[in-house]
Amino acid sequence: MGKMLLQEAYNYNLQVSVLDPSPDAPCCNIAPEFIVGDFKDFETVYQFGRNKDIVTIEFEDVNTDALEKLESEGIKVFPQPSALRTIQDKGLQKLFYQNHGIPTQKFELIETKKDILKLHIQLPVFQKLRKSGYDGYGVKAIRSSADIEEAFDLPSVIEEKADLLTEISVLVARNENGEVQTFPTVEMEFNPEANMVEFLFAPAQITPAQDKTAQKLAIQIIEALNMTGLLAVEMFINRNGEVIVNEVAPRPHNSGHHTIEGNFVSQYEILLRALLKLPLGNTDTIMPAVMVNLLGEKGYQGKAVYRGIEDVLKLKGTYIHLYGKTQTKPFRKMGHVTILNENLLAAKELARIVKSTLKVIAEQ
Amino acid sequence: MGKMLLQEAYNYNLQVSVLDPSPDAPCCNIAPEFIVGDFKDFETVYQFGRNKDIVTIEFEDVNTDALEKLESEGIKVFPQPSALRTIQDKGLQKLFYQNHGIPTQKFELIETKKDILKLHIQLPVFQKLRKSGYDGYGVKAIRSSADIEEAFDLPSVIEEKADLLTEISVLVARNENGEVQTFPTVEMEFNPEANMVEFLFAPAQITPAQDKTAQKLAIQIIEALNMTGLLAVEMFINRNGEVIVNEVAPRPHNSGHHTIEGNFVSQYEILLRALLKLPLGNTDTIMPAVMVNLLGEKGYQGKAVYRGIEDVLKLKGTYIHLYGKTQTKPFRKMGHVTILNENLLAAKELARIVKSTLKVIAEQ
Repeated sequence: MGKMLLQEAYNYNLQVSVLDPSPDAPCCNIAPEFIVGDFKDFETVYQFGRNKDIVTIEFEDVNTDALEKLESEGIKVFPQPSALRTIQDKGLQKLFYQNHGIPTQKFELIETKKDILKLHIQLPVFQKLRKSGYDGYGVKAIRSSADIEEAFDLPSVIEEKADLLTEISVLVARNENGEVQTFPTVEMEFNPEANMVEFLFAPAQITPAQDKTAQKLAIQIIEALNMTGLLAVEMFINRNGEVIVNEVAPRPHNSGHHTIEGNFVSQYEILLRALLKLPLGNTDTIMPAVMVNLLGEKGYQGKAVYRGIEDVLKLKGTYIHLYGKTQTKPFRKMGHVTILNENLLAAKELARIVKSTLKVIAEQ
Repeated sequence: MGKMLLQEAYNYNLQVSVLDPSPDAPCCNIAPEFIVGDFKDFETVYQFGRNKDIVTIEFEDVNTDALEKLESEGIKVFPQPSALRTIQDKGLQKLFYQNHGIPTQKFELIETKKDILKLHIQLPVFQKLRKSGYDGYGVKAIRSSADIEEAFDLPSVIEEKADLLTEISVLVARNENGEVQTFPTVEMEFNPEANMVEFLFAPAQITPAQDKTAQKLAIQIIEALNMTGLLAVEMFINRNGEVIVNEVAPRPHNSGHHTIEGNFVSQYEILLRALLKLPLGNTDTIMPAVMVNLLGEKGYQGKAVYRGIEDVLKLKGTYIHLYGKTQTKPFRKMGHVTILNENLLAAKELARIVKSTLKVIAEQ
């Protein structure tokens, strides 16, 4: 995400500094300034931000105290630390939805795994750690009382299992003037094994009423958070056709990768515009798109090797983005491919071909 | 050009080193490795290239002897130094067209300005320096014998003044396997004062027969040069409707900026694919485009300031590319704006608005 944000920032001729814990992060040698440091550490984040004009994140789990101190000293921190606090803690996030009348899956908050026995929600449920969950990590399915033993023994959200039909997402941006723009709603298909997005279809094939609701909810949330920046609002459509908010991410998001090629303004550009108090621009679709996440192949770990690139490059309207991570492991996000086509069904067909052709394996 | 090529190279996860004479070149702090040095100097170019896998250029006037030595030592140098030699010298370039039966404006070669008196071509003519011309520099109009005094006293091409209707360009790429792809023909409108492209329209509004000829000529030239890489073929259409080759540039070109947003594969991506021996991909137009060069405003010199950016960012389908040059001067290329629209006429109208709105001036 950092790398793709940088690629866009260069069009705006911005002087960007990056803080990342990994010395070989994908953007380590393309950032005008790259600093290695732990973004959970107060001092590191504070010292990094002190001499900047604007600070933003592309990963939620950052030291919010440090961001708050920077904000109090007059530095523009977007998303605002107050919004970030609500989002970082999945318990607070759920309470926020409840308080604002935003439809969300039924839930209870627990402190330890023993509390699961006292729930008012019936199994099966999902347990989600309140803090530090990421990309499927920090989520457990509890199907029967036998699973409780294996549950996280930490403050968590227990959520009723959604009877879901489709997962959708709306990206919404807001600048300091309060201008708000949403991207067209997209639809996601998950890899059931890894609990990660495998395919994304833009635009979503849902009813106009569902679309309208999804778009309205995204705007309602970013406004209620009083947030400047970019917010990805992940939602379910359940078997009754209702739109239910799952969770949000206040940063560029996997469900917006296709906007680089598929929309007039990309999620990276709109974030920069929001941060810089510029007009957000036009989020319309240029052409329907399918995004395929390139996940590390099962059974391979080590130095990444990409197989099938040539075959994919022959296909019309395919865009390969390799993130430059040196090491692969099963289901690690190593890149993505976007497929543009005037016909969404044709793009879907091409996406299946890409998926079966392009593999990230490890050096032998 | 270097900066935009880098932005694309990051998608391919390439390790790029840049050699540039200017320590504050637009890509100076975004290149994984940036070396300051004169690319006309043999030793500088040779030492730079020795440990590379592939060497390319984005400016013709490079030390070809050094590139030849690198090539002889097994390094892939694209465009090949032999092709570069023909192109670098406008005299050789004209002879090349003549030898290959490629239609080109009538010309004679001269050594000194005295030779102008002995010409068989009637005035008015254009005098073009055989070497080191760039962006309108190195070209003089000789309208009457009074102008001969002011002519360049150096080896030059004297060219009959074209009775031209339109200037067009075809970008053509070729990889090591000999695969060739052209981009759709585009049309250019010049700023008469600066003799530089001000607007570019894609696709060109010409007859199907003219288009076919232009496309064929581009392919013929890159094949005759036996060149790997990207070639911009600039052509005239004269008042008889004939297509005539003006000159070529063996690198990303101003007449291909719009391909970043307007075509499935951009000129930068296709060059990388050509260099890497990959399939060249599909050059089809996604949407008609107009490109506006952002030239430094007349009467301003010094630290660049951009006026009107916000107003342009409000327009649908406008993409601003600032090159990050710190200093502006009259007619210096400071950036470009691409406008996409399903309707080329609407895009043209927007382009005129962009031109009159966005100005590069200097700090007071």
